Amino acid sequence: MANAVVLLSGGLDSATALAICRDAGFDAYALSFRYGQRHQIELEAAASVAAALGAAEHLIADIDLRRLGGSALTADIEVPKDRDTDAMAAGGIPVTYVPARNTLFLSFALAWAEVLEASDLYIGVNALDYSGYPDCRPEFIAAFEHMANLATAAGVEGRQQLRINAPLINLTKAEIIQQGTALGVDYGLTSSCYDPDDQGRPCGHCDSCLLRARGFAEAGLQDPLLQRFAEPY
Amino acid sequence: MANAVVLLSGGLDSATALAICRDAGFDAYALSFRYGQRHQIELEAAASVAAALGAAEHLIADIDLRRLGGSALTADIEVPKDRDTDAMAAGGIPVTYVPARNTLFLSFALAWAEVLEASDLYIGVNALDYSGYPDCRPEFIAAFEHMANLATAAGVEGRQQLRINAPLINLTKAEIIQQGTALGVDYGLTSSCYDPDDQGRPCGHCDSCLLRARGFAEAGLQDPLLQRFAEPY
Repeated sequence: MANAVVLLSGGLDSATALAICRDAGFDAYALSFRYGQRHQIELEAAASVAAALGAAEHLIADIDLRRLGGSALTADIEVPKDRDTDAMAAGGIPVTYVPARNTLFLSFALAWAEVLEASDLYIGVNALDYSGYPDCRPEFIAAFEHMANLATAAGVEGRQQLRINAPLINLTKAEIIQQGTALGVDYGLTSSCYDPDDQGRPCGHCDSCLLRARGFAEAGLQDPLLQRFAEPY
Repeated sequence: MANAVVLLSGGLDSATALAICRDAGFDAYALSFRYGQRHQIELEAAASVAAALGAAEHLIADIDLRRLGGSALTADIEVPKDRDTDAMAAGGIPVTYVPARNTLFLSFALAWAEVLEASDLYIGVNALDYSGYPDCRPEFIAAFEHMANLATAAGVEGRQQLRINAPLINLTKAEIIQQGTALGVDYGLTSSCYDPDDQGRPCGHCDSCLLRARGFAEAGLQDPLLQRFAEPY
């Protein structure tokens, strides 16, 4: 079996990406980050998801982005609530954007992939029902893949080319949920909220909660996370 | 004055890159990493260099790469000694290569640049007298710059393009030393050795020490670091 590194935030999208990676036959090395996010509860979700989907290993790396600031997820900036999901994409880059986060996370994954001699990286970015983040677009992923193959020993020595897989990039949230459900993902283990309480109860009002709720509604499915909390929304 | 982020290891090359950045008129934000390197003494050198060259700020970020392994600089692998400097480039990628290190460091610098609204990054990589690292080549730097401008809010919103400056990339070590000396760099503050003792005394036998010694010899200059240690080599 070949090795793949999977970025796993603990959210719905990355859990689905992990399931797709496993379904493709890879030994999956799941990678999460403690980066100073206010929703650090997602790391517990990531551990549960990694175990449930049979990851070969789950590594939580520390990269503290709070010193840099610039985002509602890592600094003392309020998380926007109750925005219109249809208008999100048109609203530009929201304050929950973390500068260069996906670049940094993919770079760390690249380092681990090199050590593991992994041929593939998986990232659950999504360009349709996204929140306007520049580093979730197909052209960014393609540029990263090109750069990665010049950056590493494997690329230089011609041993292998590294693929950056973004299998959700052109799916709607509803399609992601349907695909993950078919692959046996338990979305009750995941955590999407940008601003959960100490128990991980989602706020129900941030962009991420709203997109998740809309996705389940459009998929015609119940969100199993609702069963874990009596009054989540 | 415009802002620039400068990767500063504490070594000879990055000190020169900082001096070039300052000479170009930038407010320089120096960035170093505590990544589990065995030669952590270089961080003290970085602090001295940043202060001497008038950096606006010096940030030491923590990214622990020991968990990943794969390099003589971060794992329990012996640092090669007394290699032929002429044969280094032909010898392939040495064990002192740290997987994806420059990618990761540039990515963190990119995040900081975004927060600082910096237009420029500086990195002291060098493709001539290098030690065979894939992430020191011009094609890697160009690919990173292309990716960076797709990754960030500045690029998407058309506010500015980010430049990745690698002003040493086509210089010999001797030319770097001559240029830095002309700009007033005190190389006695820098630390190049991969395997120094606790006081920062260079081993004199690793690739980095050998390339440094050859550079000073070819430049016709004395290494001021020799004055700090009675018997450095």
